[in-house]
Amino acid sequence: MKFAASASEMAIYLDNAATTPVRKEVLLAMEPYFSEKYGNPSSMHQLGLEANYAVSESREKIANILNCASDEIIFTSGGTESVNFAIKGTAFAHKKGNIITQKTEHHAVLHTCKWLETRGFEITYLNVDKFGLVNLKDVESAIKKDTILVSIMYANNEIGTIQPIKEIADICKRKKVLFHTDACQAAGYSDIDVKKLGIDLMTINGSKIYGPKGVGLLYVKKGVRLTPLIHGGGQEFGLRSGTENVPAIVGFAKALELAQKEKEIESKRLTILRDKLISELLKIPNSRLNGHPTTRLPNNANISFYGVEGESVLLMLNEKGIFASTGSACSARSLEPSHVLLAIGLKHDWAHGSIRFSLGQTTSKTDIDHVLRVFPKIISDLRGISPVK
Amino acid sequence: MKFAASASEMAIYLDNAATTPVRKEVLLAMEPYFSEKYGNPSSMHQLGLEANYAVSESREKIANILNCASDEIIFTSGGTESVNFAIKGTAFAHKKGNIITQKTEHHAVLHTCKWLETRGFEITYLNVDKFGLVNLKDVESAIKKDTILVSIMYANNEIGTIQPIKEIADICKRKKVLFHTDACQAAGYSDIDVKKLGIDLMTINGSKIYGPKGVGLLYVKKGVRLTPLIHGGGQEFGLRSGTENVPAIVGFAKALELAQKEKEIESKRLTILRDKLISELLKIPNSRLNGHPTTRLPNNANISFYGVEGESVLLMLNEKGIFASTGSACSARSLEPSHVLLAIGLKHDWAHGSIRFSLGQTTSKTDIDHVLRVFPKIISDLRGISPVK
Repeated sequence: MKFAASASEMAIYLDNAATTPVRKEVLLAMEPYFSEKYGNPSSMHQLGLEANYAVSESREKIANILNCASDEIIFTSGGTESVNFAIKGTAFAHKKGNIITQKTEHHAVLHTCKWLETRGFEITYLNVDKFGLVNLKDVESAIKKDTILVSIMYANNEIGTIQPIKEIADICKRKKVLFHTDACQAAGYSDIDVKKLGIDLMTINGSKIYGPKGVGLLYVKKGVRLTPLIHGGGQEFGLRSGTENVPAIVGFAKALELAQKEKEIESKRLTILRDKLISELLKIPNSRLNGHPTTRLPNNANISFYGVEGESVLLMLNEKGIFASTGSACSARSLEPSHVLLAIGLKHDWAHGSIRFSLGQTTSKTDIDHVLRVFPKIISDLRGISPVK
Repeated sequence: MKFAASASEMAIYLDNAATTPVRKEVLLAMEPYFSEKYGNPSSMHQLGLEANYAVSESREKIANILNCASDEIIFTSGGTESVNFAIKGTAFAHKKGNIITQKTEHHAVLHTCKWLETRGFEITYLNVDKFGLVNLKDVESAIKKDTILVSIMYANNEIGTIQPIKEIADICKRKKVLFHTDACQAAGYSDIDVKKLGIDLMTINGSKIYGPKGVGLLYVKKGVRLTPLIHGGGQEFGLRSGTENVPAIVGFAKALELAQKEKEIESKRLTILRDKLISELLKIPNSRLNGHPTTRLPNNANISFYGVEGESVLLMLNEKGIFASTGSACSARSLEPSHVLLAIGLKHDWAHGSIRFSLGQTTSKTDIDHVLRVFPKIISDLRGISPVK
C-alpha cells in the first residue's frame, strides 16, 4: 500500500482526540535538538550542558503553567507510561491496598488496574451516570481504610464529559488518599493548576496538544512516594531512567505553553462549531448525543445513530476526505462496543452506531458546514441497507 | 546560562557512546510524520492507515536486519525501557526465580535487578576478568534449576569490551534458560542476526546509532512469555501500550538500516583512528587501557591516567572544544568511581583518572591528531597540581 500524497492536505481532520499534528511553532522549537544541540543531558561538556539546560528550561516552563515546583515534573514517553507510572508506582510503593477508579477511564488506567488485580491489589470500579459523570458521594463512600489511590480522568476521550476534579480532590484530601487524574484530553482546554485543583498526581501528554508523540509527564506532588516504573541511570530525579528525549521535551513544553495561552479563545471558537455540529446532527432521526450536554470538552461531539455500523460510517466519511472515529483510537481496531458507551447505559445497537468528531486547530466553519452537507445522506444510505430497523 | 551558538559546530565530539546526532538521512525520513502524516496508527481513516503503514514498514525493515519475524519486534521508548521490559517482563511472567547478570552491565540492567531483589527475586552478579569479559564456565555453572533469565550485554558502554554473546546463547539454549542481551552499544558495529546468535531477547535503541532519542526496541522471540511493563490500548501486539511514536520509529528503522549497511567500512575506519589514539595516549607515563585490547568496539578508547581527576580532564578538554566522558553519561554527574572500572579490578586512584573517547561518524584523522597534540599537556599540567604523586 502506497499513498501518492499525504492524506492530510485535502482532508477535514476531526480526530484530534486520537492525535494532533505537531504545530509549526513546536516543530521549529524542536528542530535544533536533533542534529545540532544533540548532547546527552548527563554529559559533562558544553553539548551536554546545552541539552541539560533545554530540558531544565522546559521543565520550568511547564512548572509555571501547572503552578508547581520544577522537580515535581517527571518527563515520560507519553500518557500511557505516565498513567502506568502513577498507578503501579503508587501500588508498588504501598505493596498492597485498594485503588478506586471508574468505568469510563482510558484503557491505560483500566488495563493497568486489571493487571494489578492479578498482583494482589483490590480495585473498585465506580459507575457513572448517563452523562458519564461520577457521583461524588460514590467516591467518598468507596474510600476505605486501605485505599491508597483514587484515579479519575479529567475529561473523557470518547464522550468528552468533564469530571468534577476539584471536588474529587477535596474528598481525597479530606480522606488522606492520593488522587491521580489523567488530564491528557483536558490539557488543551482546561485549567491544569495543580494547587488550585488540589491534585497529587497528574498525567499530560504531548500528542493531544499539538506537541510531539512519544513524550508526556507525570506531575508528582512533593512528598508522594512512587516506585519507578523504569529503573536505570537515575534521570528525572531518580524516578524515570533513560536518556531524556530532548527535542520532544522542548516541543512538549512549547505546545503546552501555547495551548494554555490560547485555551480560552480556542475553547470559545470550538464550542460554537461543536454546538452547531451537534444540534444539526441531532436533527437526523434516531440520533442521540453521548456525554454531558454542557460539561464537556469544547472539541468533542460524540453522537449515536441507531441501526448503523460506526465503522461503515467512518469508511464512507473517509472516502469523502473526512476523518473521524468511532471511539478511542486505541480500540478502534476492535469490534467490541466501546466500554465508555456501555458504561453510560447505551445498548449495543446504539453503541455500535456512534461517531466521535473531535475538532481542533485546523477545524473551520467551512469544514463543519461541509460535514453537515454530506453526513445525513451517509446515515440514510446505510440505514437503507441495514438489517436493524 | 545561554549559549550564543551551538557547541557542536566547532567541536570535536568524542562522546558518541553517550548519544549520537541524528544523521541527515534519518531526519529527512522522519520529517513528514510530524505535521503532515501525523495520524494515530490505530485510527481507521487514511491518515491513520498511512501512519500504520509507516510503522509496519519500519518494523519489517528492522525484522529483515535482525533476521526475525516482524511481530517479534516491539517498539519502546528507548534502551532503558527495553531492558526494564525484558527483565521485569520475564520476572513478572515467571513470578519468582533467579536471574543471572554480570557486574559491568549498564545501570538499566543492574538497577532493575536490584529492584527485583526487593520483590523476592534472586540475582546472581557474575564477575568479569581484567578485560571485562565474563567467563563462559561461570555462566554455565551459575545457571540453576530456578534460573529464568540470563542478561549479558553485547558490548560495554564504558570500556567497549565485546562479550562472547553467541557462546553464552548456546549455553542458555542447552540449559533451556532465556537469554537477553543489551545491544545498544553494539548495534552500530556488530552482527545483530538473532538467529545466528541464538538470542531470545535483545535491546537496541535509536540514540546510539545516529537515530532519534526516545525510541528503542525489544526483540522478543516467538514463544517467549513477557508481562507488559506498560499496559493500556494494546499496541505492539499487546506487549507495549501507548500511541506509537511514528516519526521516531521511522527514523530508528532508517538509522539501523544505514548503520548495519555501513558497519564494516565504518568499523575499519574507526579501528584505525581508535588504535592510533590508544597507542599514542599510552605513551603518556602511568597510563593504561581499560577493556579488551582487541575484542572491543571499534569506536571506544577508555584510558586511565594515574593521579588525575577525570572530571578536571573533561573540563580542560571542553575548553578546547573536545567533548569526551569519564564513563557512562548516565552516571557522569556522580562522583563515585565507575562500577565498570572497579569490576575489572582498577583501584580508585586509577579509576578516577579515566577518560572515555567514543569516536563516531564525524570523527576524522584531523580530529584525532588535534586531540593527540593537546592531550599530553593537559595530563602533565593536572599532574603538576595533583596531590597524588
